[in-house]
Amino acid sequence: MKTRAAVAFEAKKPLEIVELDLEGPKAGEVLVEIMATGICHTDAYTLDGFDSEGIFPSILGHEGAGIVREVGAGVTSVKPGDHVIPLYTPECRQCKSCLSGKTNLCTAIRATQGKGLMPDGTTRFSYKGQPIYHYMGCSTFSNFTVLPEIAVAKIREDAPFQTSCYIGCGVTTGVGAVVNTAKVQVGENVVVFGLGGIGLNVIQGAKMVGADKIIGIDLNPDREEWGRKFGMTHFINAAGKSRDEQVAEILALTDGGADYSFDATGNTEVMRTALECCHRGWGESIVIGVAEAGKEISTRPFQLVTGRVWKGTAFGGAKGRTDVPKIVDWYMNGKIAIDPMITHVLTLEEINKGFDLMHAGESIRSVVVF
Amino acid sequence: MKTRAAVAFEAKKPLEIVELDLEGPKAGEVLVEIMATGICHTDAYTLDGFDSEGIFPSILGHEGAGIVREVGAGVTSVKPGDHVIPLYTPECRQCKSCLSGKTNLCTAIRATQGKGLMPDGTTRFSYKGQPIYHYMGCSTFSNFTVLPEIAVAKIREDAPFQTSCYIGCGVTTGVGAVVNTAKVQVGENVVVFGLGGIGLNVIQGAKMVGADKIIGIDLNPDREEWGRKFGMTHFINAAGKSRDEQVAEILALTDGGADYSFDATGNTEVMRTALECCHRGWGESIVIGVAEAGKEISTRPFQLVTGRVWKGTAFGGAKGRTDVPKIVDWYMNGKIAIDPMITHVLTLEEINKGFDLMHAGESIRSVVVF
Repeated sequence: MKTRAAVAFEAKKPLEIVELDLEGPKAGEVLVEIMATGICHTDAYTLDGFDSEGIFPSILGHEGAGIVREVGAGVTSVKPGDHVIPLYTPECRQCKSCLSGKTNLCTAIRATQGKGLMPDGTTRFSYKGQPIYHYMGCSTFSNFTVLPEIAVAKIREDAPFQTSCYIGCGVTTGVGAVVNTAKVQVGENVVVFGLGGIGLNVIQGAKMVGADKIIGIDLNPDREEWGRKFGMTHFINAAGKSRDEQVAEILALTDGGADYSFDATGNTEVMRTALECCHRGWGESIVIGVAEAGKEISTRPFQLVTGRVWKGTAFGGAKGRTDVPKIVDWYMNGKIAIDPMITHVLTLEEINKGFDLMHAGESIRSVVVF
Repeated sequence: MKTRAAVAFEAKKPLEIVELDLEGPKAGEVLVEIMATGICHTDAYTLDGFDSEGIFPSILGHEGAGIVREVGAGVTSVKPGDHVIPLYTPECRQCKSCLSGKTNLCTAIRATQGKGLMPDGTTRFSYKGQPIYHYMGCSTFSNFTVLPEIAVAKIREDAPFQTSCYIGCGVTTGVGAVVNTAKVQVGENVVVFGLGGIGLNVIQGAKMVGADKIIGIDLNPDREEWGRKFGMTHFINAAGKSRDEQVAEILALTDGGADYSFDATGNTEVMRTALECCHRGWGESIVIGVAEAGKEISTRPFQLVTGRVWKGTAFGGAKGRTDVPKIVDWYMNGKIAIDPMITHVLTLEEINKGFDLMHAGESIRSVVVF
């Protein structure tokens, strides 16, 4: 069949909208019509050539929502007509990681997914007879895409695609970091570095679970209003402040430091500040942001020996098929908000504008509707 | 009163055995006759001038056992004749840290302890009219010492001083790191870097709780026999092996990495290896060793984002007055061994020999008996 898609033919070039050939689903795979897709920093990170493992030509996009249109042999958990969110972190429920109960990092298809391939080692997309690679196992910048059955979460049918697509990455990453990774409890103090599309979701996750102080910190003063809209109680403008000054301000606000801090910037210097602003004895810092290739985090080991904990999270620690439908429920039940974060709605033809808006810091989230 | 003590008059000089003046206990303090004291790397670290906050002249030693001889006003939890272990990490049961239930790092007397003073801001020791400073709130290299009530753990009277003194630091630090900080469960795989007086106690802690593979790693091949004596199941000689080689060997032995790793070396490069040999998704690395001043730990944040956790521990996460008596029970009941680790028993006059033996790698633990 044919599908329209925005193709990344090479790094550092705008996406091109073309019509591609798409092979139908093989055994264990499903064909999904993508109805809406968010544009995330990770797409830009790859498109801008920062990802040393980026593969081109490929179809980016990993934050979508759509409808199953066809299923391959042996698929039992979804059927045509089901509404789904594609999962860049699948959940096979069979591998050592899934069975451990300790992590969401399913390894069932990791090797092929990292190479831009379906689990059988081939691509479903092609253009003029040449293969076009998949991206993060999703490729939601195509109107139709093929996904492994274990990489789709079935969601309720009354959830709007245009907003629930954001649960495919940003919402789950931020809210999940609070709920699944940090396991923030009522009354605890939280600090969030970076009030973009992830940080705001950390804030509303912290509000949902009853955190006490929710301190946001950013270089952009315009983000204060955004933070407060989702539950932030205090704002720190980091501009011109040294790490020690930022840490001192947070320690004063929290009577000794954050119970949990979150880095949603991807900046390794900020990650260090986030660790060091944690409370002596128990504060935990969660790295969410993806750092530039080659960058390292550092601190004095004394920070750890005196009780701080350094962790990270991917996809908010969420087990996709199990947890994503619950987050859709939280959204539909009003426990979390998404609509105000979707600042721009674009057509596929306007997709490059979405990247420009993100780079300019003008959008929280741009969504392409097919 | 008078007491014999080994005094560190200045950094990088041998200790001198002299007779000091000792004031009796003030309110909330106890006078303890030290019966035995271990010599720990931390004493050497301070004596050798690596501790930028080291204070001289002082009486080192923080791993002792003795008998309460006198109590000051208001002391209710111990009485003359009680057997006790001095605690460099006190347990006041009143401060924010103690009441949090999340940490053993009591802050009640932290400020004065760090300055070599008793909680009222003075010293009890003096020599020719000049104050001699306390060390880590213990100063067990003195036959008699004065301690805050909250800094002594009452222990059973049938425990020999010569071995149970080691519970004042090394045993609790190693065993506690396993039991309190990592909370290792039966069947998990553990890797221990550095098979000295701390690492061997990590090994026996891991054995006590039923760990599956207990892998020891050291540059000194003589330590293999020591490790196996306490429950080590595999030994890796790190000599000449790169970090990547060490990590690959551990991943192969453990089907993907350590569930828990422990650094008992104090070397920041080793701390990184210890983190990176952990299992993707859930492995936790615990920093035990004290690094040289100014040294930092580093890694790629990807290590954390893919599920590894970096932690530290001080005094094995043990709440001294509560947990130390339990560890003495474990020793007396044969759950852990101490006797074979006490490789040298010295008189106070021979104390400098204990430091020499440690620097030469010839001792596991030297103990001074008064």
